[in-house]
Amino acid sequence: VDRAQAEALDRTDPLAGFRDEFFIDPTGPIYMDGNSLGRLSGRVADAVEGAMESWRIEVVGGWREWVDLPLSVGDLIGRLIGAGPGQVLVGDSTTVNLYKLSRAALDVQKGRSVIVCDDNEFPTDRYVLAGIAAGAGSNSREPIEVRWVRSDPVNGVDLDSLASCVDERTALVCLSHVNYRSAARLDIQAVTSLVHERGALMLWDLCHSAGAVPVDLDGAGADMAVGCTYKYLNAGPGAPAFLYVREELHTRLSSPIWGWFAQRDQFEMGERFEPVDGVGRFGAGSPDMLGLVAVSAGASMLLEAGMDKLWGKSRAMGEMLLELVAERLEPFGVDLGSPADADRRGAHVSVRHPRAWPMCNELVARRLVVPDFRVPDTVRLGPAPIYTRYVDVFDAVERIRDVLAGGPTSSERERPRVT
Amino acid sequence: VDRAQAEALDRTDPLAGFRDEFFIDPTGPIYMDGNSLGRLSGRVADAVEGAMESWRIEVVGGWREWVDLPLSVGDLIGRLIGAGPGQVLVGDSTTVNLYKLSRAALDVQKGRSVIVCDDNEFPTDRYVLAGIAAGAGSNSREPIEVRWVRSDPVNGVDLDSLASCVDERTALVCLSHVNYRSAARLDIQAVTSLVHERGALMLWDLCHSAGAVPVDLDGAGADMAVGCTYKYLNAGPGAPAFLYVREELHTRLSSPIWGWFAQRDQFEMGERFEPVDGVGRFGAGSPDMLGLVAVSAGASMLLEAGMDKLWGKSRAMGEMLLELVAERLEPFGVDLGSPADADRRGAHVSVRHPRAWPMCNELVARRLVVPDFRVPDTVRLGPAPIYTRYVDVFDAVERIRDVLAGGPTSSERERPRVT
Repeated sequence: VDRAQAEALDRTDPLAGFRDEFFIDPTGPIYMDGNSLGRLSGRVADAVEGAMESWRIEVVGGWREWVDLPLSVGDLIGRLIGAGPGQVLVGDSTTVNLYKLSRAALDVQKGRSVIVCDDNEFPTDRYVLAGIAAGAGSNSREPIEVRWVRSDPVNGVDLDSLASCVDERTALVCLSHVNYRSAARLDIQAVTSLVHERGALMLWDLCHSAGAVPVDLDGAGADMAVGCTYKYLNAGPGAPAFLYVREELHTRLSSPIWGWFAQRDQFEMGERFEPVDGVGRFGAGSPDMLGLVAVSAGASMLLEAGMDKLWGKSRAMGEMLLELVAERLEPFGVDLGSPADADRRGAHVSVRHPRAWPMCNELVARRLVVPDFRVPDTVRLGPAPIYTRYVDVFDAVERIRDVLAGGPTSSERERPRVT
Repeated sequence: VDRAQAEALDRTDPLAGFRDEFFIDPTGPIYMDGNSLGRLSGRVADAVEGAMESWRIEVVGGWREWVDLPLSVGDLIGRLIGAGPGQVLVGDSTTVNLYKLSRAALDVQKGRSVIVCDDNEFPTDRYVLAGIAAGAGSNSREPIEVRWVRSDPVNGVDLDSLASCVDERTALVCLSHVNYRSAARLDIQAVTSLVHERGALMLWDLCHSAGAVPVDLDGAGADMAVGCTYKYLNAGPGAPAFLYVREELHTRLSSPIWGWFAQRDQFEMGERFEPVDGVGRFGAGSPDMLGLVAVSAGASMLLEAGMDKLWGKSRAMGEMLLELVAERLEPFGVDLGSPADADRRGAHVSVRHPRAWPMCNELVARRLVVPDFRVPDTVRLGPAPIYTRYVDVFDAVERIRDVLAGGPTSSERERPRVT
């Protein structure tokens, strides 16, 4: 790969036009952290401004429209993750949604007391499940246990290891589709089938998948899913998360948090809690309106771009990154922290180096690249396809190499051309 | 009371200048629903714009500053509710916070299995507690029971009735300081003492108090509190809620939802959940940054105004409302739905009428007044002191009277003067 090839790919990139919708300082560092926090786009900014305008003018009357957003924006996200209408709800955080759905699942799996999870799972997932097992706040005397699948830090959960952990005592399996660190990607269909064969329920964490990697929840018969909107959906720091519950489970499962926004005839303010029929029953408190319109704008842009094109570009950028890493960074002691096989990898690529932390600091301090450091030795490179160019990927690796080599950065000298 | 008196009060109102900070259409209806959703101010709009600017420029680097907001904005709210620093956390919804704190309380009150609550309590509080009692999602076999204090729909919870419900089996008492419907206000000090004498923990819902009515949580020795920020704090629809846990309880209580934003050395992503020492241990997922800056701006404005002045004006507007209702609306069959005694009332005034619903519809449709209807027969009038004038209160009652009388509205004819 050379820079000319990257430029050629950019010239024929069908997604190139979307970059102009984002606020990008051409003299700023190359942003390779789309997998942590997506960038602000003009349409998300406009959506937030518009929501403030509607609050300003309508004040409380605005709720007549806002009240439908958790479900209607959920349907937009549904189209990105293979979920038919009425199964996705936007609201709360991924953490709270994980808690709600895990508890709901355990509640209908009486006699089964084991939750299976990956020991390399994202911390909040591990902590939420450990908290449930510890009986925190539940006055529970029925022991719940988390069984940790030992997974490979680079290649993720192995299907055989998983199979050996899921049995007739397993109530729930909770796994990320794409691992937050290594980007190791699971086969949703295969895992869901395995879990279902043993009578357990499957909860997917789609934080690193939604808007990045094709997902077909309905097709795979998945039971539940959660995910965030501030990564590839570009909805902003702390924008509301989403949850998915497949239609057949709506009447079986119920949230442990009985909130008034899940109530049928909410403004009757009835004596008893009677949840609505659909996925709205997993709602809780007042929805975050500014956040919801941001999610709506972010998801709409991705739908316009098309998941096939986004994923196509992501894969191509990932393959380019692997080549560049092998060719230009391995000589400096960098090795791959992600699966080498694109079919087992998500939308980011991790690399490892003993000096990863000072290297990241220098990249940021010198405004060369914004990477993402993960203890102890990992750098995640997450080029969001909606606003990242192939030349950005190329230049980012060059700048990383130059920092590792301790010299000046060639791409820094070239920067005026890279706009 | 006549209009000239109201005008005179406005001329000497020390808070008058704050009205100019809000976006108010002088030809629009009189907004009397500050107790449901506060208005947008310029500084809240600026704060949200500023947060988007910081997201645009810093992208993920913005978290270096944003990460402190849940506690620092919590401290601002603390100054409005008599809570010293480090005891208030902003995040999640009131519903989720109620759940977290109720569960946390039950967890340390082993052997006590009763929650006491008002049967006229706001729905989400009732539903959350009923859900906990139903063992929703908890795999619990230890029965929890909610004991409902029968309260008066107008005058609220009577201290003797409450006393007869709280005993050695009571784990937790959960009550609103100011009732959402009637505005009946409890004595935080007296109730907390009564509850503590019997060994129970006290959880206050401050949704209708924060920024409206003086509260001294530390002074009263209150254990826990929750509240929202979209009413008197004017932080916008669905802005994040807050929770308070008094310092002595930080190490005793733990959240049922173990999230990564409560974790010590969060980015070490350690194997075990080890919550931070302070109130941050009740955090869960990623904080809503746009919401947090809005809360910060909203709370700052109230602190600048001063709770004493806000409450002074609220009381004066409340007393004026009572006089006007008695004089001008009672002849049309309206009666008071709030305590007559200002010492037992919060910041809004409720009135009742058999035709309350069509009356509210007409007030809104004709753009005369935005009141707040509550089934079956109640109209809440919530003149937020930070942006409502005494003449607004006067004119609102006039317009309500005119609608009830079925004639044209005198104040509509006068409207050009009322700007």
